[in-house]
Amino acid sequence: MTAIALDYERLKGLLTEKEISGLQPDVDRLHASLEKGLGAGSDYLGWLHLPSRTSSALLDEVMESARFVRENAEVFICVGIGGSYLGAKAAVEFSRSAFHNQLPRGLRQSPEIQFAGQNISSDYLADLFELVEGKEFCLNVISKSGTTTEPAIAFRLLMDLVARKYGPEEARKRVFATTDQKKGALKKLADARGFKTFAIPDDVGGRYSVLTPVGLLPMAAAGMDIKTLIAGARSWESLSSASSALEKNLSYLYAVLRFLLYKKGKAIELMAAFHPSLVSLMEWWKQLAGESEGKGQRGIFPASALYTTDLHSLGQWVQEGSRNLFETFFMVDSSRRQIEIPRLDNDDGLNFLAGKTLDFVNDKAYKGTASAHLEGGVPNMTLSVKDRSEYTLGRLFYFFERAIAMSGYLLGVNPFDQPGVEFYKKNMFVLLNKPGFGKGS
Amino acid sequence: MTAIALDYERLKGLLTEKEISGLQPDVDRLHASLEKGLGAGSDYLGWLHLPSRTSSALLDEVMESARFVRENAEVFICVGIGGSYLGAKAAVEFSRSAFHNQLPRGLRQSPEIQFAGQNISSDYLADLFELVEGKEFCLNVISKSGTTTEPAIAFRLLMDLVARKYGPEEARKRVFATTDQKKGALKKLADARGFKTFAIPDDVGGRYSVLTPVGLLPMAAAGMDIKTLIAGARSWESLSSASSALEKNLSYLYAVLRFLLYKKGKAIELMAAFHPSLVSLMEWWKQLAGESEGKGQRGIFPASALYTTDLHSLGQWVQEGSRNLFETFFMVDSSRRQIEIPRLDNDDGLNFLAGKTLDFVNDKAYKGTASAHLEGGVPNMTLSVKDRSEYTLGRLFYFFERAIAMSGYLLGVNPFDQPGVEFYKKNMFVLLNKPGFGKGS
Repeated sequence: MTAIALDYERLKGLLTEKEISGLQPDVDRLHASLEKGLGAGSDYLGWLHLPSRTSSALLDEVMESARFVRENAEVFICVGIGGSYLGAKAAVEFSRSAFHNQLPRGLRQSPEIQFAGQNISSDYLADLFELVEGKEFCLNVISKSGTTTEPAIAFRLLMDLVARKYGPEEARKRVFATTDQKKGALKKLADARGFKTFAIPDDVGGRYSVLTPVGLLPMAAAGMDIKTLIAGARSWESLSSASSALEKNLSYLYAVLRFLLYKKGKAIELMAAFHPSLVSLMEWWKQLAGESEGKGQRGIFPASALYTTDLHSLGQWVQEGSRNLFETFFMVDSSRRQIEIPRLDNDDGLNFLAGKTLDFVNDKAYKGTASAHLEGGVPNMTLSVKDRSEYTLGRLFYFFERAIAMSGYLLGVNPFDQPGVEFYKKNMFVLLNKPGFGKGS
Repeated sequence: MTAIALDYERLKGLLTEKEISGLQPDVDRLHASLEKGLGAGSDYLGWLHLPSRTSSALLDEVMESARFVRENAEVFICVGIGGSYLGAKAAVEFSRSAFHNQLPRGLRQSPEIQFAGQNISSDYLADLFELVEGKEFCLNVISKSGTTTEPAIAFRLLMDLVARKYGPEEARKRVFATTDQKKGALKKLADARGFKTFAIPDDVGGRYSVLTPVGLLPMAAAGMDIKTLIAGARSWESLSSASSALEKNLSYLYAVLRFLLYKKGKAIELMAAFHPSLVSLMEWWKQLAGESEGKGQRGIFPASALYTTDLHSLGQWVQEGSRNLFETFFMVDSSRRQIEIPRLDNDDGLNFLAGKTLDFVNDKAYKGTASAHLEGGVPNMTLSVKDRSEYTLGRLFYFFERAIAMSGYLLGVNPFDQPGVEFYKKNMFVLLNKPGFGKGS
C-alpha cells in the first residue's frame, strides 16, 4: 500500500503496454538529467530534494509563528497570487472542514484563513475589509520580489489597516513576510519595519514552492501538522529518486500516460474529483501542469471538474461531445465520517439504498461514470489516495511536482520557466505608465 | 446603453464581417423556428417567454416564503444539483458579498445560503451538519421528480434533522419543495407532509430553470429583489424576440462568433472574468453551454478562469500553449465600492499607482491581457455588463439562454436534451442493485 495508487486499466484499449514501456529509455535518461541537474531549467531544481533538506529548525520556526497567529488572531490573511496562494488554499481545503471559515471558533480551533492579493477586485477587497472589521487579525505577505502588482496593492492597503488598528509596535508582531532570502523590495521593507521574515529559496519557482514557508505557514496557522506533511513529501521524494522504472515510479508512469494520450490527440486533461475537498488542489495542479507545459504552442489543457456535481453540468459534454479529452479521476478511498442513508416510508424509490453509506454510493457513482465515459470514447484513469491526512497530502504535492517535471521534459519544453506570463504584465505596465515601460494610451 | 455589450473588435483578424453576416440567413431561419416552436426539442421551450409570462402573484408568493425564511432561519439550505443548484449559487455570488456566509447576521441581513445534495460526499455533509448544529434553519429541496440520487439522499438526511429538531408541525413550515406541478415522488411526499410547494413548469429543462422558483426562492431568501431580476430578463426577452438581426441581437451575435471560431478549430472557449463575483455564474454558463451543445461528438469545451488570479496559473498556457482556444472576457464596468491605492514611502516600485483606483488597475490588466493573448494567437472578445444589480443579472441569464439555444441550433444539435447524462446513472444503478436495473457486481 503506497498511499497513492494509479489505476490505468481503462486506458488499455487505447495505449498498449509496448507503447508505455517504449518510453522507459527516455524516462531513464530524463530522470538522470533531472537528478544531475543537467536538463533545461536546472537553476530551478530546488524543489527536487527540498523535503529531505527541510530542517526541523525551520519547521519549528514556522510553527512558533503559527502559534502566535493561532493565539492572537481570529483571521489570518494570506496575501499572494499564483504559487504564493494556490498551495495554501489547496492544503486548507484538503484537510479542514468544507466550512472552515464559517465555523464558530471553538469548533474550528484555528483562525479563519482568508486570501487577498490574488486579484485586483475592488469589491472583493472591500468585502474583506468589512469581514475583518472589529476582528483581531494577522497578515502573511508572500512574494519573492515584493513587486508583483496584485499582492503589492493588497498588502499596501492591509498594512495600512494593521498600522491604524494596532500601531507600529504591535503591527511588527502581526505581519509575516515570506520572501527572498536577501534581496527585493519586500525583504527590504520587512527588515525596515521589523517584520518576521521567512525565506523562499532562490532555486524554487513559485508553482513548486508549496513545501517551503510559502505554504507551510498558512497550513500551520490553520492547525495542520506540517512535520507530518514534510515526512510524507520526503517519502515520495525518496521513492521517486530511487528508481525511474515505470512500475515503481508512479509519478513517471502518470507523466508517460498523459504524454501518450496527448500524442494521440487528447488535447484536454479533465481531472475529476469525487470529493469537494480536492477542488483547490486541482486548481494548484492546473497551475503546476499548465504553467510548466503550456509553451512552444503545445501542452495539454488542464481542466478540472467536481463529480458528481459536474456530471449534472459538464457530464453531457464529456459523454457525447468532441472526443478530444481524457479524464483523470481523483479519489479519496475513505471519508473521515461515515453517514448511513436512513429508511423512509415514501416512494421516492430510494429505499434500495437504505443502510448503505454515502461512501458506498459515491464509489458506485465513480465506477459507473468511469465505464460510461470510457464507452463514450473518453479514456480515463484513476489516481487515488488513502485519506485526507497531512502525510498523504505531502506525498501528493510531491507526486505531482515530480510527474509534471517529467511530463514537461517528455514534451520537450523547459518545465521550470514561464516566459509567457510576462506579456500581459508588460502590456499592463505600459497602459499604467509604469516608469521604464513606455507611454500608455 | 444596453447594459450588456459585446466587443468583438479583436476577432477581426480571424473572422471577416462577411463570414459573420453570411450566417444571418441561417440565424433568421433558426430564430423563426425557435419562436414558432418548430425546431428540435420544442417541448422544452418554456424558458423562451418565461420572463414575460411570470405573474406578479407567483413572485409575491415566492417573496412571502422568502420572508418567512429570512425571519425564522439563520441558515437556508438549498438541496439540488445541476440546474437546480448552479443558478441560485451564481445569483447569490453575483449580487452579495464575497463573504456572504461568513458575515455577522447584522451585516448580512439574510440567512446563510448553503447547498446540499450537489454531491455524494460523506465528509461534506458531515461538515454541513456540524455547521448548522444549534442554528435555526429552513430547507428548500429542488428536484423535478424527486428521484435524482444526490438531492434525494441529502434531503432524506436533512428532513430527518428538521423533524428531530422541530417536530412534524413546525417542520411543515420550514421545508419548501420546488418540484413538478402535479406528479412525481417529491410532489407526493410534499403534499403528504404538508410542505409548501412551488412548481417547475413541464416545458422548462433544468439548465433553463433559473428564472423559475428553482432560482427565485433562494435568491429572494438571500435578500435579492426578484421583481427587478425578472424585469431585466423580460427586457432582454423582448429585445431578443423583436429582431434576429445580428447588429441588434447580441445573444445571436455571440452565438455566431463562437460558432465560427469553433469551425476554425478553436475547440475550447475559455470564459475569463476579472471579478470573483462572476465565478459561479461561469459555472452556470458551463452547464448551459456544455450540456446544450456537447453531443454527437461535437461542441465547444466550455472552460472558465478568474483573472488576474489565473493569469498566474493558466496564463502561461493561454499565452504560449496549444493554439486551440479562444477567450471570452467577462467584465463588470464598475465596482460598487472604489478603493484608492495609498502612497507609501518604500521602494516596492508601486508609487506610480498611488491615487489610482483598483478598478483603474484592473481595467488596464484586462486590456493588457486582451492584447497579449491576441498577439500570442488566442482570439478573444469581451462581454461586459454595467453593474452587479438584479436587473443586469436577469438580463444576463436570459442573454446566455437565448445565445446558447441559437448556438446549439447552428451546430445542428438539439440544445434542449441531455441523452448522455443518463449513461453514468444507469451504470451506477446497476452497481447499486437498484430495482429494475439488473444485477451489479
